[in-house]
Amino acid sequence: MVLTAGIDGALLALRSGALLPKVGIMIQRSLHFALTCLLFLVSFADSKAAETRPNIVVIFCDDLGYGDLACFGNPTIKTPNLDRMATEGQRWTNFYVAACVCTPSRAGLMTGRLPIRNGMCSDKRRVLFPDSDGGLPPSEITIARALKDAGYHTSAIGKWHLGHLPEYLPTSHGFDSYFGIPYSNDMDKVEKTDHYTLAENERFEAYNVPLMRDKEIVERPADQRTITRRYTEEALKTIRERKEDPFFIYLAHSLPHIPLFRSEKFKDISMAGIYGDVIEEIDWSVGQVLDTLRAEGIAENTLVVFTSDNGPWLLFKTHGGSAGLLRDGKGSTWEGGMREPTVMWWPGKLKEGVVQEMGCTLDLLPTFVALAGGKLPTDRTYDGYDLSPVLFGTGSSPRDTMFYYHGEQLFAVRKGPFKAHFQTKTSYVGQKEAKQHEPPLLYHLGNDPSEKYDIAPQHSEVITEIRKLAETHRASIEPVENQLEKRAAAK
Amino acid sequence: MVLTAGIDGALLALRSGALLPKVGIMIQRSLHFALTCLLFLVSFADSKAAETRPNIVVIFCDDLGYGDLACFGNPTIKTPNLDRMATEGQRWTNFYVAACVCTPSRAGLMTGRLPIRNGMCSDKRRVLFPDSDGGLPPSEITIARALKDAGYHTSAIGKWHLGHLPEYLPTSHGFDSYFGIPYSNDMDKVEKTDHYTLAENERFEAYNVPLMRDKEIVERPADQRTITRRYTEEALKTIRERKEDPFFIYLAHSLPHIPLFRSEKFKDISMAGIYGDVIEEIDWSVGQVLDTLRAEGIAENTLVVFTSDNGPWLLFKTHGGSAGLLRDGKGSTWEGGMREPTVMWWPGKLKEGVVQEMGCTLDLLPTFVALAGGKLPTDRTYDGYDLSPVLFGTGSSPRDTMFYYHGEQLFAVRKGPFKAHFQTKTSYVGQKEAKQHEPPLLYHLGNDPSEKYDIAPQHSEVITEIRKLAETHRASIEPVENQLEKRAAAK
Repeated sequence: MVLTAGIDGALLALRSGALLPKVGIMIQRSLHFALTCLLFLVSFADSKAAETRPNIVVIFCDDLGYGDLACFGNPTIKTPNLDRMATEGQRWTNFYVAACVCTPSRAGLMTGRLPIRNGMCSDKRRVLFPDSDGGLPPSEITIARALKDAGYHTSAIGKWHLGHLPEYLPTSHGFDSYFGIPYSNDMDKVEKTDHYTLAENERFEAYNVPLMRDKEIVERPADQRTITRRYTEEALKTIRERKEDPFFIYLAHSLPHIPLFRSEKFKDISMAGIYGDVIEEIDWSVGQVLDTLRAEGIAENTLVVFTSDNGPWLLFKTHGGSAGLLRDGKGSTWEGGMREPTVMWWPGKLKEGVVQEMGCTLDLLPTFVALAGGKLPTDRTYDGYDLSPVLFGTGSSPRDTMFYYHGEQLFAVRKGPFKAHFQTKTSYVGQKEAKQHEPPLLYHLGNDPSEKYDIAPQHSEVITEIRKLAETHRASIEPVENQLEKRAAAK
Repeated sequence: MVLTAGIDGALLALRSGALLPKVGIMIQRSLHFALTCLLFLVSFADSKAAETRPNIVVIFCDDLGYGDLACFGNPTIKTPNLDRMATEGQRWTNFYVAACVCTPSRAGLMTGRLPIRNGMCSDKRRVLFPDSDGGLPPSEITIARALKDAGYHTSAIGKWHLGHLPEYLPTSHGFDSYFGIPYSNDMDKVEKTDHYTLAENERFEAYNVPLMRDKEIVERPADQRTITRRYTEEALKTIRERKEDPFFIYLAHSLPHIPLFRSEKFKDISMAGIYGDVIEEIDWSVGQVLDTLRAEGIAENTLVVFTSDNGPWLLFKTHGGSAGLLRDGKGSTWEGGMREPTVMWWPGKLKEGVVQEMGCTLDLLPTFVALAGGKLPTDRTYDGYDLSPVLFGTGSSPRDTMFYYHGEQLFAVRKGPFKAHFQTKTSYVGQKEAKQHEPPLLYHLGNDPSEKYDIAPQHSEVITEIRKLAETHRASIEPVENQLEKRAAAK
């Protein structure tokens, strides 16, 4: 405790600039980061809960829609493993992501902070590309860093998309190991060819996407036909090898992002076509993970969270998913873009059933840190909450508000059941310019989950309250360097 | 067998008119009906399966949408009892009704025959009204008649809507008892007042709907505030009193049809407002039924089927339900009008899981007759199939086709995953005139369950096949008296 207080003091001094007025800002930042990490470690060591630290597995999809799982109402895609996971655990029906596109959404999940706070969103370039020079700043504390400091073995498998230069890769951000592709599976396109015209077995070669192990490229183009299976095998191997440690596995499938691929044995098995096949292979993968946890006797000490990064890519029609009864999809701040089918599982620990309360991927870091017996650093703003009360059925969700960002703009705010849209941009119809709303559109997401009936005229008091919330929130944002607009000089 | 053959011969003779050429057609019909029933009885007595006849409960809602249950993806309505029922039984995701509005849909369920075959649909008056003089013809064999002949106690509880004159009421159609309202809960409107402006406790008086026991009116206006609870109590009483018999209970809730009502204890319990409250009371009711079956020790010998008559009444906005990811709602031949959230339950007997194969309320009579060990009469056309192979996991669904009627018009046909629309009329936007499609619109309901992407130009061979199916089907329809257009002379 004395040590903690001492470091706290040092951090405070650092922040005020009192200790090192003449030292370059970079050195100051590095020292600050090192001290923060030390503080983190100390706060974990303090904890009496350390000995009960659960294993944590996050299974994260790419562009999966709210309506794509059988347990979320899909009529033609079979997901028996996820259905069972939901029955044995919690099915969250109001669970959000930090942003409606890939890079910022993942930055939010990994740090518990809105991407606007660490430069991981942009109005100009919505995600990182192969020619990007930026990435998640080293000063950010990822879930992996936090849990590694708490004694976890940390493993990243799958798509990263938080920077492909060495300093941004998973193993520079607290992960002990990494196996996967550094950005989206449709990047590094070889030529301007429509991949749908290619034979399936050649199609993956149309994208020169690298497959990496730690910091090395081990295959290029990555053979995406077998990628879900190979990610899964890597996860199962990690579970078996690390079952004595507490472990954190971030299993981020690169699918069902376009272009779609699936293994031989999943070809044409789904009534919903290739998109269904892809989801059914991911469902198989989930089943493998849960079965292995059971077989290794560690299911009762493992929390598994299943969700995705943003809504379905509707522009791809039957090759994109469905947001179910929610409006719009990927790239949009309508519900279909940012609410995800989420299932949590921890046999014998979670209060089973449907959870209608709000949660967000931003809440995962604070929740995991609490479960691991640690405390959040106090030197930065967090946008997440510890969801433990909801997990264990001991209380209600601390989250009652959601901020919906489109790039760097705050487009909408949800408070309780009410959601106000200040701006909208419907991605399904490819709307180019955002539409301003004054007064904002207002929807009651309880009785109108599909955002059909604007009730702004009847509820000006709610709009007033939400305006205040938005103002307070905006005031909390400090300018930072935009990572998505940094371009490699050589390109 | 000899007796059966003899009656078969007599029926054949009756149909050809050879035996009684001079007798009036009415007498001929009555004799024909009596012989048909006798044949039915004999075919049941023949069966070796008679001793294992299961109890059968059909729980039928009114205007419930495909997206209104938690287990079908609703994010804000809680249905833990139906969710559990689905987990323990079968959740059918491609289960249809016989028509997209009330009266014809119920006629189809009760008889296993499309309403076009018995005059129970009309282009002019889409359902029966308090001034109607028609009803389900006495020559029709209902599920109740079929099961009563097989030794079942038969009980109708709730909304009927197949004719309110004595000769059409449940107790004239094979039910031993009846407790409920004879038509929709919004009929017999007292004055032209918008019921939303009335205080909740007075609102039910705005509709002078009668509540009946057998053929007597026992309350008027029916107190709809407590009606779901009272229907439920009646069902539980029947289960307890009849547990030694095989019984058939048709529990047809009059809700969530507009106007909405729920008991005191369900007021404001749902995040989805009054509509959610109503569904949550119905879910409670389902739980009561299943709990009572378990408590009485007869769960393992009881098949329970939960579904509804047609899609959600979207014109009523937040007081109407949601069709989830399906297009349109009540009154429409788009999927949202005719596909219903359906759950079947029979502990230890059904093959548990999600069923994506097709089923329809038209299939219930043939399925129940098979389960009771009987055979269908051969003197009439049935549009339903015995679904037993799907129930028990011994085979695939015999249903591969659906005919979608709008009044007396065949608007659409589904064959396998393909659905062709010859005409459409979108009820959500209040479209007045049907739109003709030549060539028909064609959708693949497997990868496009929301009917978004017309693929007619790519699949003319499918259209040719479906056209043939439609032709053959139309040729099987014989003209009958229209029951919905008959008006009481005095009115």
